[in-house]
Amino acid sequence: MKFGFVNEENMSLLTDLYELTMAQVYFKRGMNKTAIFDFYTRKVENRSYLLTAGLEQLLFYLLNIKFTQEDLEYLRSTGLFEEDFLNYLKNFRFTGNVYAVEEGEIVFPDEPIIQVEAPLIEAQIIETFLINTLQHPTLVATKAMRCYSAARGTILIDFGLRRAHGTDAGMKAARSSFIGGFSGTSNILAGKEYGIPIFGTMAHSFILAHKDEVDAFINFASVYPENTILLVDTYNTVNGIYNAVKAIKKLGLKHFKGIRLDSGDILSLSKEARKILDREGFKDAIIVVSGGINEYKIKELLDNGAPIDGWGVGTELVVSADLPYLDCAYKLVEYDGRPVMKFSTKKKTLPHKKQIYRIYENGIIKRDIITRYDEKVDEGTPLLHKYIENGKLVKKLPSLKEIKEKAINSFNSLPEEMKNIDTTVHLYPEVSKTIEKTIKELEKKYLKG
Amino acid sequence: MKFGFVNEENMSLLTDLYELTMAQVYFKRGMNKTAIFDFYTRKVENRSYLLTAGLEQLLFYLLNIKFTQEDLEYLRSTGLFEEDFLNYLKNFRFTGNVYAVEEGEIVFPDEPIIQVEAPLIEAQIIETFLINTLQHPTLVATKAMRCYSAARGTILIDFGLRRAHGTDAGMKAARSSFIGGFSGTSNILAGKEYGIPIFGTMAHSFILAHKDEVDAFINFASVYPENTILLVDTYNTVNGIYNAVKAIKKLGLKHFKGIRLDSGDILSLSKEARKILDREGFKDAIIVVSGGINEYKIKELLDNGAPIDGWGVGTELVVSADLPYLDCAYKLVEYDGRPVMKFSTKKKTLPHKKQIYRIYENGIIKRDIITRYDEKVDEGTPLLHKYIENGKLVKKLPSLKEIKEKAINSFNSLPEEMKNIDTTVHLYPEVSKTIEKTIKELEKKYLKG
Repeated sequence: MKFGFVNEENMSLLTDLYELTMAQVYFKRGMNKTAIFDFYTRKVENRSYLLTAGLEQLLFYLLNIKFTQEDLEYLRSTGLFEEDFLNYLKNFRFTGNVYAVEEGEIVFPDEPIIQVEAPLIEAQIIETFLINTLQHPTLVATKAMRCYSAARGTILIDFGLRRAHGTDAGMKAARSSFIGGFSGTSNILAGKEYGIPIFGTMAHSFILAHKDEVDAFINFASVYPENTILLVDTYNTVNGIYNAVKAIKKLGLKHFKGIRLDSGDILSLSKEARKILDREGFKDAIIVVSGGINEYKIKELLDNGAPIDGWGVGTELVVSADLPYLDCAYKLVEYDGRPVMKFSTKKKTLPHKKQIYRIYENGIIKRDIITRYDEKVDEGTPLLHKYIENGKLVKKLPSLKEIKEKAINSFNSLPEEMKNIDTTVHLYPEVSKTIEKTIKELEKKYLKG
Repeated sequence: MKFGFVNEENMSLLTDLYELTMAQVYFKRGMNKTAIFDFYTRKVENRSYLLTAGLEQLLFYLLNIKFTQEDLEYLRSTGLFEEDFLNYLKNFRFTGNVYAVEEGEIVFPDEPIIQVEAPLIEAQIIETFLINTLQHPTLVATKAMRCYSAARGTILIDFGLRRAHGTDAGMKAARSSFIGGFSGTSNILAGKEYGIPIFGTMAHSFILAHKDEVDAFINFASVYPENTILLVDTYNTVNGIYNAVKAIKKLGLKHFKGIRLDSGDILSLSKEARKILDREGFKDAIIVVSGGINEYKIKELLDNGAPIDGWGVGTELVVSADLPYLDCAYKLVEYDGRPVMKFSTKKKTLPHKKQIYRIYENGIIKRDIITRYDEKVDEGTPLLHKYIENGKLVKKLPSLKEIKEKAINSFNSLPEEMKNIDTTVHLYPEVSKTIEKTIKELEKKYLKG
């Protein structure tokens, strides 16, 4: 019996077989000149922007990747690899350069979020893990930011661990949603590992384990007098609210943190709850809502005047339910100084090592332009920064709180129509004339047939 | 800088905060009688059945859960837990019983897939991890089985690691799709950890790194003469097929494993490819297709006579794109011998410790009935088996291949209309009269308000 955990020791094998078979061919044929690969997304149907996340985990991988004796033994057992290549892997380290857009920055389709410049074999081997490490965090950070946009200052907490796709997704969802404007998570391990504030209320089972709802509330609130949010919808929600008040009064508590609604007609129940709580003298008690929450429901409820103070957002956040994957890719754009591109239908790539320049007007994003890396431009702020040089970290990494601040600032730099969750604005970066020229030349050369 | 890996040492903290705060209240109040919790799904809109997966990982968790010194120090630092409770956690082990439907079995909404019978605190603490461990594997195994249904004997390979939600999801997707009828995966670590056959072709970058497509094919095929599937759509697909033939002939190889199509009009390109390969004397060369594949595309292409031998199914499989989450829950159904249920709108639960009986007719599922565990029934095969008794494994676990065989057999027991991927048949199990009687009694007692 085994779980199959991925960890620092075996992460190098968490890759597609073809990465290593191609690598062996490169090795055998002596093809290991400098390659440049872009990680970017293609068109995204229902998002006006993407908020990047996952860079720190990618850097950890690149700085630590190695093949252990156990890895090499397994590879040998497949019969696909020869001793000289296995010996090469034994000493494998990532020795290249990595350029990346900062975590918590806004990006658009076609923009290289990560650019890897490394000997071809190294740049190829890291492909699968790189995409895996960036896609899901970027999806969740973006979804979180949309919730943040809808929530207008009310509190957002990640409740999604149980519905995340596996253990790692639960961790990354907590981290990415914190970056995207959430205040905390229910995930204790994410609290421990990343220092994210942890929150929790109570489950229906807690109520059901007691014969009486009031007794259940009293038991919880007496152990956590300062920190109890009572779940009121197990039987009849309005009764539940009165029972919550009864319990707090019976205990003689002056402070009542609040209640949670998890089902039913939330708009009317939250209004009813507010009335009852105010009337009973608990004006400071907050109302938290959970259960199938997403950015649209938050907006609709607040638009209709629901007196809701906080949200537990779970499933739809952590699986990015309305966009569960990005059409993202990691593609070779230059090899040995030669710009390259593929022409596959609807999947063209942009050749050359590149830079992105962002042009702001009064602090608001006006346009982006993608240029060759060494191209001179008249205006704009470069978005790609060098994080790894010759395999070593060369940029100080921000704390998670700093990444979150960066994300909020990035959000504030969006044009208003892009902040609107109900419409999708498709912004595409411009592509510089020098890149366009290369594309024409390559088309002429490779599409003659 | 850290990754935040989850492993055997820290998995006990991969849980929602409320599990431990509720546990502390139970501990303080001496509430630790036997509880029974069900894990089940509610209505599923676009699936006629679910194929269970993830049980082995759950059992691993239950047999190994413990709180380390480091875990306890973090919990202490939150200020939410007292020393007596932390001391209880120090010696925490799971000592209860676990009943489960076999991995690779078909289940329907409302059926308890897992039933935990344990002291309340233990049964509560394991909730979050249990749901996390079962949901995604079940989603992927089900999606895989739908692909298997559509593929009619053609080969299916999991190509999804890069687009899976994190590292763990990539591992579980490989394992779960293998259970659901796939022949293998591109994920090397899944090959190593689970013994799943691994497969791979080549990437566009491999072609682009060479100046000439034929040279690229020659380089690969000369290193892997028995095992090369050439990717032909980098520039112009039909040219690419001719270039592939040219390379194989130039090398004088008698065996040509095949080609991969990853973009364009797959129906016409696959027919064109088959003609060219046959005409050139490579009747055995296979045609593999990838790129946005799902069960619907497989069916449509095969219905239209596309001569496709194998499929690389990636993104839509591993994220279960058209059903990225299950409305699943883990709910208390009995405490200290007392049946319980919640009445939350649209989220009712079924009280009592239960058993599921499946009634077949000529080997085909006719109906399921959910009964009290100790209820006598006239016919049917029980689906819930005891896996853990008093914290110890009491059932021999099948190999992954045996689980896959079980899954194929389960699939074959489905009525034809349920195998059809284009329609959804909603089968609901019957609920026995004795359970219905309890529901009425509880309604009377708790819904008076």
